[in-house]
Amino acid sequence: MKLPEGFRYATTYAGIRKDKRDDLALIVSRPAASAAAVFTQNLVQAAPVLIGRKHLAESKGTVSAVLINAGNANCATRTGERVAVACCRAVGHQLRLPINQVIPSSTGVIGVELDPNLIVNSVPRLIGALRQDGFDAASRAIMTTDLAPKTAFAEVGVGDSIVRIAGMAKGSGMIHPQMATTLAFVMTDAAVRPAMLRAMLKRATARSFNCLSVDGDTSTNDTLLLLANGASGVKVARPEELEEPLTLLLQDLSQQIARDGEGAKRFVTIDVSGAATNDQAVRIARAIANSPLFKTAIAGADPNWGRVLSAAGNAGVNFNPRAVDIHMQGTLVCKAGLAADFDEAELKRKLDAKDVNVRFLIKGRDAGRARFWTCDLTEDYIRINASYRT
Amino acid sequence: MKLPEGFRYATTYAGIRKDKRDDLALIVSRPAASAAAVFTQNLVQAAPVLIGRKHLAESKGTVSAVLINAGNANCATRTGERVAVACCRAVGHQLRLPINQVIPSSTGVIGVELDPNLIVNSVPRLIGALRQDGFDAASRAIMTTDLAPKTAFAEVGVGDSIVRIAGMAKGSGMIHPQMATTLAFVMTDAAVRPAMLRAMLKRATARSFNCLSVDGDTSTNDTLLLLANGASGVKVARPEELEEPLTLLLQDLSQQIARDGEGAKRFVTIDVSGAATNDQAVRIARAIANSPLFKTAIAGADPNWGRVLSAAGNAGVNFNPRAVDIHMQGTLVCKAGLAADFDEAELKRKLDAKDVNVRFLIKGRDAGRARFWTCDLTEDYIRINASYRT
Repeated sequence: MKLPEGFRYATTYAGIRKDKRDDLALIVSRPAASAAAVFTQNLVQAAPVLIGRKHLAESKGTVSAVLINAGNANCATRTGERVAVACCRAVGHQLRLPINQVIPSSTGVIGVELDPNLIVNSVPRLIGALRQDGFDAASRAIMTTDLAPKTAFAEVGVGDSIVRIAGMAKGSGMIHPQMATTLAFVMTDAAVRPAMLRAMLKRATARSFNCLSVDGDTSTNDTLLLLANGASGVKVARPEELEEPLTLLLQDLSQQIARDGEGAKRFVTIDVSGAATNDQAVRIARAIANSPLFKTAIAGADPNWGRVLSAAGNAGVNFNPRAVDIHMQGTLVCKAGLAADFDEAELKRKLDAKDVNVRFLIKGRDAGRARFWTCDLTEDYIRINASYRT
Repeated sequence: MKLPEGFRYATTYAGIRKDKRDDLALIVSRPAASAAAVFTQNLVQAAPVLIGRKHLAESKGTVSAVLINAGNANCATRTGERVAVACCRAVGHQLRLPINQVIPSSTGVIGVELDPNLIVNSVPRLIGALRQDGFDAASRAIMTTDLAPKTAFAEVGVGDSIVRIAGMAKGSGMIHPQMATTLAFVMTDAAVRPAMLRAMLKRATARSFNCLSVDGDTSTNDTLLLLANGASGVKVARPEELEEPLTLLLQDLSQQIARDGEGAKRFVTIDVSGAATNDQAVRIARAIANSPLFKTAIAGADPNWGRVLSAAGNAGVNFNPRAVDIHMQGTLVCKAGLAADFDEAELKRKLDAKDVNVRFLIKGRDAGRARFWTCDLTEDYIRINASYRT
């Protein structure tokens, strides 16, 4: 599939990571793109988030370049904002762009000073290396504990024409809903007004990244940036022309993050239906997805539906437990809040799978529903995070 | 230390557990005790919680007997309430007590029918075995995944006299604040009016069991029951005569639960100060205590203060990150929101301890503070919970 027009990518090893893998990526859009972004809701926000927000406001949602580093979050550092600005300035200077059309983004360890020279000195090399097919390399350069890059692509017919969307994301731990989890950059060559782009992104995020949880932790750097540069020459007049494919693409990226959850062996989809509202359904699904007891039962291929019911009971949402049916891998395990009659040995075999589906159905007249993604909680999650920094 | 007067205890193996350990305990108070209780806030409540609540209301807070079984939560079962009532009736009948002076309590797996005959047939044996020094055996019979029984004792001078308090608790996983975590039974031979007892218990719980978290999961059966039978002949006229020793005793039990957290290697005390209110301090402490990334860092003896700051930033409480100092094991690791200068190797050695202290200080004029207890998150937590039911 062809990548969106007008975007070029470059990566290099700037010396930020200890292991010598590319740790710096640059995305450049010509023409300048309309941009919409969702940032972390953590009270503690990294310098690149603060500067990115400021630049987007100053440029009225116009972005020409995104500079992303892995290996250091540039958060809780003495020099954080100065470093982020210096990096943007280097890119703006060399590309002859206003500095506020450059968005910085960082991921990695918190609280360690980031040497701006490592990045500033790499910028000429990066700019020289910009290529339209540098997308894959960029999706790898932004990885931290990720085992695999996360990318997704779409072609969308708009009227008689075609526009393209390409997205990349990183993230494996510190993944929680209610924010634009981790880093994700989505490019399209459609022409979309910034206000419409923002509205679309907000709704699409609610149905994708905000329905994702690995461990219930929210990071200080999370950013989801959507760029629409219009290079296809195709104008999107109404949100519905682009919103559904965009949502599906963001869902695809979200699911890839859950699949690559730190230490995860199983990918879990939780479907809730019959809640009073969609929002209440999301809250029930999230309570299940964030329950360590549920997640460890899934790791053990244990059809322990009592933990599903108990976790849902902690969601802060009112429902009648006696109206609840629970299915695991399609097998009815709880009927009207009580144990259903099922073959436990057979279901254990079915649960010993890469993909696990849990369905939580509240019977009645309400139609609120949600689909949520998470992964199991395994001993490897502990192993990875007990030693990540050292 | 002497146990409170007027309470007798018995245990037996009723055949509820698979392994042949005592799984049924009876506590009898003569005279009947004033009682106060705190129950789970989970929407899904087990039958013994529903019946216990009903009995307390009917008897106006008078309790003569408590019947506790381990191995089956009697929750989400077809016959749950009938079973709980039948068990109380058997005790009431044999002891010639109104049934509503008997409180049932259960812990164990959810969603499996509990055979009432196992319990009813054991009641005569239990009653025959009642002894004043059966306290320790009872504290063991209520254990599930607990590695050790949790008990605490106090003697309190009231005027010229002495009253005694003895408490037992069980709990190791599915432990979360905001409720009377897990099962705890506290006996005192002081005479206390039910209304005063309830008020005292509420305040004492806020400073003990509600400041405890193992894994952020809340169970369907949690109950904290406080019985005051007046057998010492000493009347408590004002709450302050008993409340502080009671609070300390509940804190002691809470800390024992965190120490015995499933798979825990380290016991963690989190002190937060300088928040706008005590409640906000608790919310910050809880956000830190519930962060899997923080808990795994502690398991790895990693002074990863960035995870502490980031977790606090998710508490939904407003504070200035640049006013935050963080200490671990007494070492300043974060000063004014930035990395402090500390010897990392030395601190790693200090963190490799059974007891870990984290201090989160917001500098300024606010005085809200909280002390919170949790444990680290280790690979053994996963091992225990991936296979608990099977």
